[in-house]
Amino acid sequence: MTLVYLDHNATTRVDDAVLEAMLPFFQHDYGNPSSRHGLGIQARRAIDKARQQVAEAVGVQPVQVIFTSGGSEANNLFIRGAADSVKPNHLFISAIEHPCVLKPAQALSRRSSDPWNLHQFSVDSSGRVDLEAAKLALQQYPPKIVSVMLANNETGVIQDVTAIAEMARAHGASVHTDAIQALGKIPVDFSALNVHALTLSAHKINGPKGAAALIVDKRLLLKPLIYGGGHENGLRSGTENVPAIVGFGLACELAKRRAAETAHHTAELRDYLEQGLIGLGAIIFGREAARIPNTCYFALPEIEGDTLVVKLDKAGFAVAAGAACSSVNPGQSHVLSAMQVDPMLARCAVRVSLGRDNTMQQIDDFLRATQRIAAELKQMSSLTFH
Amino acid sequence: MTLVYLDHNATTRVDDAVLEAMLPFFQHDYGNPSSRHGLGIQARRAIDKARQQVAEAVGVQPVQVIFTSGGSEANNLFIRGAADSVKPNHLFISAIEHPCVLKPAQALSRRSSDPWNLHQFSVDSSGRVDLEAAKLALQQYPPKIVSVMLANNETGVIQDVTAIAEMARAHGASVHTDAIQALGKIPVDFSALNVHALTLSAHKINGPKGAAALIVDKRLLLKPLIYGGGHENGLRSGTENVPAIVGFGLACELAKRRAAETAHHTAELRDYLEQGLIGLGAIIFGREAARIPNTCYFALPEIEGDTLVVKLDKAGFAVAAGAACSSVNPGQSHVLSAMQVDPMLARCAVRVSLGRDNTMQQIDDFLRATQRIAAELKQMSSLTFH
Repeated sequence: MTLVYLDHNATTRVDDAVLEAMLPFFQHDYGNPSSRHGLGIQARRAIDKARQQVAEAVGVQPVQVIFTSGGSEANNLFIRGAADSVKPNHLFISAIEHPCVLKPAQALSRRSSDPWNLHQFSVDSSGRVDLEAAKLALQQYPPKIVSVMLANNETGVIQDVTAIAEMARAHGASVHTDAIQALGKIPVDFSALNVHALTLSAHKINGPKGAAALIVDKRLLLKPLIYGGGHENGLRSGTENVPAIVGFGLACELAKRRAAETAHHTAELRDYLEQGLIGLGAIIFGREAARIPNTCYFALPEIEGDTLVVKLDKAGFAVAAGAACSSVNPGQSHVLSAMQVDPMLARCAVRVSLGRDNTMQQIDDFLRATQRIAAELKQMSSLTFH
Repeated sequence: MTLVYLDHNATTRVDDAVLEAMLPFFQHDYGNPSSRHGLGIQARRAIDKARQQVAEAVGVQPVQVIFTSGGSEANNLFIRGAADSVKPNHLFISAIEHPCVLKPAQALSRRSSDPWNLHQFSVDSSGRVDLEAAKLALQQYPPKIVSVMLANNETGVIQDVTAIAEMARAHGASVHTDAIQALGKIPVDFSALNVHALTLSAHKINGPKGAAALIVDKRLLLKPLIYGGGHENGLRSGTENVPAIVGFGLACELAKRRAAETAHHTAELRDYLEQGLIGLGAIIFGREAARIPNTCYFALPEIEGDTLVVKLDKAGFAVAAGAACSSVNPGQSHVLSAMQVDPMLARCAVRVSLGRDNTMQQIDDFLRATQRIAAELKQMSSLTFH
């Protein structure tokens, strides 16, 4: 059975060209970029090129790119690195941030010495940060640090980061956005977003796991998370993961080049999918808000999401219940909670996230399989409970 | 010109079998290990297997392995994670630690709030921690945290970590050893070393860059460096770098299987090399101490190390001046300073670090090239200055 992969917000297949670009760096150009011999210099040049590619993807200078091992590290680097650079005060995040923003922020607020005051921006029922409420909250607790994601990993809902950044800057805050789920799906322009820092990750855009970046304004005060040999302008020490960084660079270039085409294609599939799902009685979360074009987060009332995911997997379709990145800690989605979704309905949530290789035929097959499984599950539950 | 790679302490070529084991995880089994569908479960199983392989390499249970993105991250995780788990007090490291132990320790001692008292164990002229002096220092400043590397990256000198751990434990300290340069070269047994934590890295043992581990005693108090989805028992969040972890696992298995053979082979080459170098008038650093078998750190008096490295590179030999991992911050080796080596001689230091693929013929060629280059450089300097 061929697998139909519909879980691109969790991770993606490495693109053929990306893997090809990476391969020489495992066995041929395997030098340590800090070495001064030819093999080291070659590796350093490869990183320089990748830094340029990543920078171009979001319209910044190469020197603004701090390579990290992943998006979680990059988000932690901002939250803890910015917090440790100033006197503790008010810290704002949205109520729907990824755990790798939420948890380091909570850690800062719970530490015994010099704790931060953590506040969360509420979201409306479509998953958008309530800008009026945010404005009032920022006035009441003038913050030093603000982090709001550009696109949510579960719902795909896009936040008005530019507006939030403007409000936060008025209070002198350093502003960060996690743009991991936005890259390659909608335009991501560092200047237009008006932030001090922005997170990108390779493995969500057909690049490899093990490479990501925090893009920074040079004026941002930041302390390293990982100290050592002084790599990445002293902000992230450790031997660079050369093949992964090379792959990240090319993945950024390809994502930028294919952005419009990918967006158009996935939007078409997503709209068709949602029409079909609504026909099956599904609720679509965040549908009233602007969303990245590849994400559909739905619930078939009374069909538990976990069960549907397992049955769909057996039928050859890989989708997610809740967010894969926190599936090690199952439980109700904090995103749907923040959107005030009924807990009984939230338990039915399933996320389909599309990629450029998905086809209309696959969506048709998926809809048919979902309809069949839903009918079976409903029949089983009626046999059990009546 | 074929390159003769003699810089294995900086990084190594990925083994054929290791790369082969990694490849399926880029494009076929590319799932996110946190996903609940088949592709995710497959990735999770691959990580479980690698965890077993890494655990077996140092004689621990798989649950004791915390995967990280690299050795620098693992060392920072211990230093900061252990420090943040107790009330600040005395922290000991050796004077010859890698920057990724030294710098996070310095950061703890320099922070404005709750700073630690950082102490350094002195070493003798061969680069061994002075155990008598260490004992007295520990009595004077009973520590909560102690970190001493097992084998030094520059000299290759092996420390008596077991003895240091015993002294440190008597004061209730948590003890860590950076065993990155020891793995695959000498036996590394977690229990025999009697430490609470130990660092390993893949790319020094013909594994890929981007995977490493902190091995921990389950009783060690540790806070995460990277918070988020709760991966690695909540101690290191972030989507696992599946291909790199798979490669790390196999590299550990191979390193263990080949350990005796590799040690015997590199020791033979190293002894022959040092005989030849001494014939050329070289000083060998740390020669009186027990060393890992692959490392030769020498100086040809009056021949600057940097210059020799560049000339050797042009002649087809990749070696290091000082430690590659901190070559981004050139300057005098802090290891040689700690050994009280004359600064003029320290500037002449060159490190040759051998691997299992090196041959006697290559050592012969290297000695001939070194002799020729040294003669040329001496002649040039006599032309210049007399």
